[in-house]
Amino acid sequence: MEKVVDQTLQAALEKFNALDQKITHFSSIIGLTDWDSKVMAPKKGRNVFAKATGTLRTEVFKLQVSEEMGDLLAVLTSAENSEVLDQVTKVKVREYNEFYQKSKSIPADLFQEYSILTAQANDAWEEAREKNEFAIFLPYLEKIVDYKRKFAEIYGYEDHPYDALLDEFEPGLTVKRLDPLFAELRESSVNLLERIKKSGKTTPEEVFEQSFEIEKQKEFNRFILPIIGFDMEAGRLDETVHPFAQTVTIGDVRLTTRYIEKNVRSALFGTIHEAGHGIYEQHVNPAYEESVLQSGASFGIHESQSRFLENMVGRSNEFWNYFYPHLVKYFPAQLKNVSVDGFYRAVNSVKPSFIRVEADELTYNLHIMLRYEIEKALIGGEIEVKDLPAVWNQKMQDYLGITPSTDSEGVLQDVHWSFGGFGYFPSYSLGNLYAAQILRTIQKEIPDFYAHIENGRFEVIQEWLRENIHQYGKLYTPNELIIKITGEQLNANYLVEYLEKKYSEVYGL
Amino acid sequence: MEKVVDQTLQAALEKFNALDQKITHFSSIIGLTDWDSKVMAPKKGRNVFAKATGTLRTEVFKLQVSEEMGDLLAVLTSAENSEVLDQVTKVKVREYNEFYQKSKSIPADLFQEYSILTAQANDAWEEAREKNEFAIFLPYLEKIVDYKRKFAEIYGYEDHPYDALLDEFEPGLTVKRLDPLFAELRESSVNLLERIKKSGKTTPEEVFEQSFEIEKQKEFNRFILPIIGFDMEAGRLDETVHPFAQTVTIGDVRLTTRYIEKNVRSALFGTIHEAGHGIYEQHVNPAYEESVLQSGASFGIHESQSRFLENMVGRSNEFWNYFYPHLVKYFPAQLKNVSVDGFYRAVNSVKPSFIRVEADELTYNLHIMLRYEIEKALIGGEIEVKDLPAVWNQKMQDYLGITPSTDSEGVLQDVHWSFGGFGYFPSYSLGNLYAAQILRTIQKEIPDFYAHIENGRFEVIQEWLRENIHQYGKLYTPNELIIKITGEQLNANYLVEYLEKKYSEVYGL
Repeated sequence: MEKVVDQTLQAALEKFNALDQKITHFSSIIGLTDWDSKVMAPKKGRNVFAKATGTLRTEVFKLQVSEEMGDLLAVLTSAENSEVLDQVTKVKVREYNEFYQKSKSIPADLFQEYSILTAQANDAWEEAREKNEFAIFLPYLEKIVDYKRKFAEIYGYEDHPYDALLDEFEPGLTVKRLDPLFAELRESSVNLLERIKKSGKTTPEEVFEQSFEIEKQKEFNRFILPIIGFDMEAGRLDETVHPFAQTVTIGDVRLTTRYIEKNVRSALFGTIHEAGHGIYEQHVNPAYEESVLQSGASFGIHESQSRFLENMVGRSNEFWNYFYPHLVKYFPAQLKNVSVDGFYRAVNSVKPSFIRVEADELTYNLHIMLRYEIEKALIGGEIEVKDLPAVWNQKMQDYLGITPSTDSEGVLQDVHWSFGGFGYFPSYSLGNLYAAQILRTIQKEIPDFYAHIENGRFEVIQEWLRENIHQYGKLYTPNELIIKITGEQLNANYLVEYLEKKYSEVYGL
Repeated sequence: MEKVVDQTLQAALEKFNALDQKITHFSSIIGLTDWDSKVMAPKKGRNVFAKATGTLRTEVFKLQVSEEMGDLLAVLTSAENSEVLDQVTKVKVREYNEFYQKSKSIPADLFQEYSILTAQANDAWEEAREKNEFAIFLPYLEKIVDYKRKFAEIYGYEDHPYDALLDEFEPGLTVKRLDPLFAELRESSVNLLERIKKSGKTTPEEVFEQSFEIEKQKEFNRFILPIIGFDMEAGRLDETVHPFAQTVTIGDVRLTTRYIEKNVRSALFGTIHEAGHGIYEQHVNPAYEESVLQSGASFGIHESQSRFLENMVGRSNEFWNYFYPHLVKYFPAQLKNVSVDGFYRAVNSVKPSFIRVEADELTYNLHIMLRYEIEKALIGGEIEVKDLPAVWNQKMQDYLGITPSTDSEGVLQDVHWSFGGFGYFPSYSLGNLYAAQILRTIQKEIPDFYAHIENGRFEVIQEWLRENIHQYGKLYTPNELIIKITGEQLNANYLVEYLEKKYSEVYGL
């Protein structure tokens, strides 16, 4: 009898791995088409090609929820079989099973209605933002929230319905865990911001009001990328309006950035940020390539790697001690009266502003928490969609001390809700929290951490990140991974301390 | 009863069209990935991504030969049904049915062995060419020829086994039809070449021995493309070692060219040639998009459009009367002592040479005929693979009056045989034959044809090509199409006369 079971299991494993590879191959191709449509595709071909990629996306979805997948998962998750699987296979089964169970739990009709709704909602949101009229978006958003509440009930949760949505972006995360983390960070950030404002001190930010030739910017961005650890033979750097990183394969990770003549910071930190995402993907264990494991652990962990490189590394004094003399060679006229210390302080300027994507390292988290609190209250039924503009503006005043004069620069600014991405925003601040905790560990294990940066020895740092984080791909859940890396659960102290220290230095508090 | 039949037919049509769309969508995506791998992809990602696209290619093949496809084709080709189908559906059924029947006729094992062989043969060919050792390629080519002979028998033919292979590239073409066409062209070409050589006259070709800044070349290529009719909003122009045109969708056709500083002709005529392919695809009736009809009629017809634009238009006196003053603005130093007439004669220089892809308009066809005769004799069993180097060199001497000193610049120069592409080469000269016949018709219908070119009114010409050729996509077989366009079957007179007239002018014979 035993032999028969083994043969069944063996056959199931072979089929499962082949299916995993097929899905991953198709996903790689979809990744390429996404990149191409944003970076290369000529205008007139986009609509029809979007239908073509839609067909491939549908194929991937069908494979993920196919009868074959269901049968294989049933075999592989059975009590006697799941015990004998190796770790990698267990994780693959976990990943596919979660998606399968969730997708299967939503009735097909409901999912179809919801898909049509979000497509329409995106148009409505665009129009509402353009016309500065929340009422245009309101009925769509109300319906989306209704669906999301329904989905949360179907998916199930222990304490808070929002947990079911958080789990899609950060597996295992709950309101219960997030509330205290964010509360601590919010209080200290509001307080720190208050002290910065009261100090009356400023940074020489006016350096960035000058023109920086775009061709020179491009050269400089290309100059730094390989030095900070991005392998240009396993990737590209191109231009788009909204910078992003797109993985095709581990050997083909594509970054984009945006060059603005009057804002040299935009491309620079955009490139470093996306490089953080890209290096993560380039460093995944090649053994996981062509499988569902080949990507990062979660949205939050991914964001930790981009924030770490952009902020903890790229906005450090030591980073600019190394790179500033080079930057001065590219822009001698613009930088002739700016010291490296002035430049360091300028790239760390803090100023409350309305738009999240333009916010500085300190106020950014307050933008996120405002959204988190709104999402949680909406899904929990404590506020209604029609209340959003008022709630938004009140929170902006409470946390940042400013009130948007229009909804377009307030509640209507982000695309996320129009595609139903509730639970997505927290990832951004989680990234900062993870990054600061990782920084503390890396500084313990590499006491010369900042000296390496100051000397341009980024390979020492990247090797540590590869060894301790990147190589694992999706092998560990985010919670398992942060404990494995730092020896403890995520907590807010490290980011709070990091921000306190940095801004005391920058603003001489 | 009738109603039941109608419903069955209706259902079959819906499924067939959905399957056609899915296959075409996937093919569009494969088109993009092919382009990307040659133009954009970073080095380290290529191998794994090639596996991913291999998975998608296999999926397309599986759909094309699937049981579902077989069942649908059986319904749609049944006597009572095939009569009631509209023209477009009939053509779709014809296209899929031909592929289905051919693919089904080759036993799976045989096809698998053959696929492995051609993969190995490509490596062997590369090595052989590099080391200039035909013996390395010999055993592989022998096997490929054996398979091709077998395939020809399985596919079936009336007169000559090579017909079965020709049909794959030029549906309906046979040795019986091609032999007299090529014989006429060969005799007159050899004779004309002889007279040119004897005349002792030359063209001021030395103009091309100068350096032309690559950036300026790029600008000039981008300048001419939209003028000659390529829609830059529905396409791109990039760089590769081997220029090509790749269709993604009708609204997304991508060209590549190659810039060589010491050879301004290379990019220029490469770009015009590929634009001929590209404009064809941009002009296909949008109603055929997302279906198998969305491409050109055949390899030969496609080549006719690129040759027409490159040679009949792009190497005409009138073309340079219009463009030369612009070119002079881009390269004043290089062109200061060259008249427009001198330039025209220089771009039409004739000189026997060893490498097909570098050959001029006259000798090119002789390179093709040599290959055609060898392929025909190989498949017909009249010569054996081991004889190839000797046969090749003898024919080079007979037709071009030169003998290659190595096999690398002789029998080993082309990739085609290594992938089993027997029957492909004739398309190139067919393109020239079609193009000259089309030129004769267009000159009848637009008597000011060359005056339009001289005045830069390319839209008049492109509109005619769109209306009479391009819009039809794959709707007509090549033979149907040339008769529809020109009122007669393909014949060699027009190309013979065209070449005679042009070279009498260029060389003052």
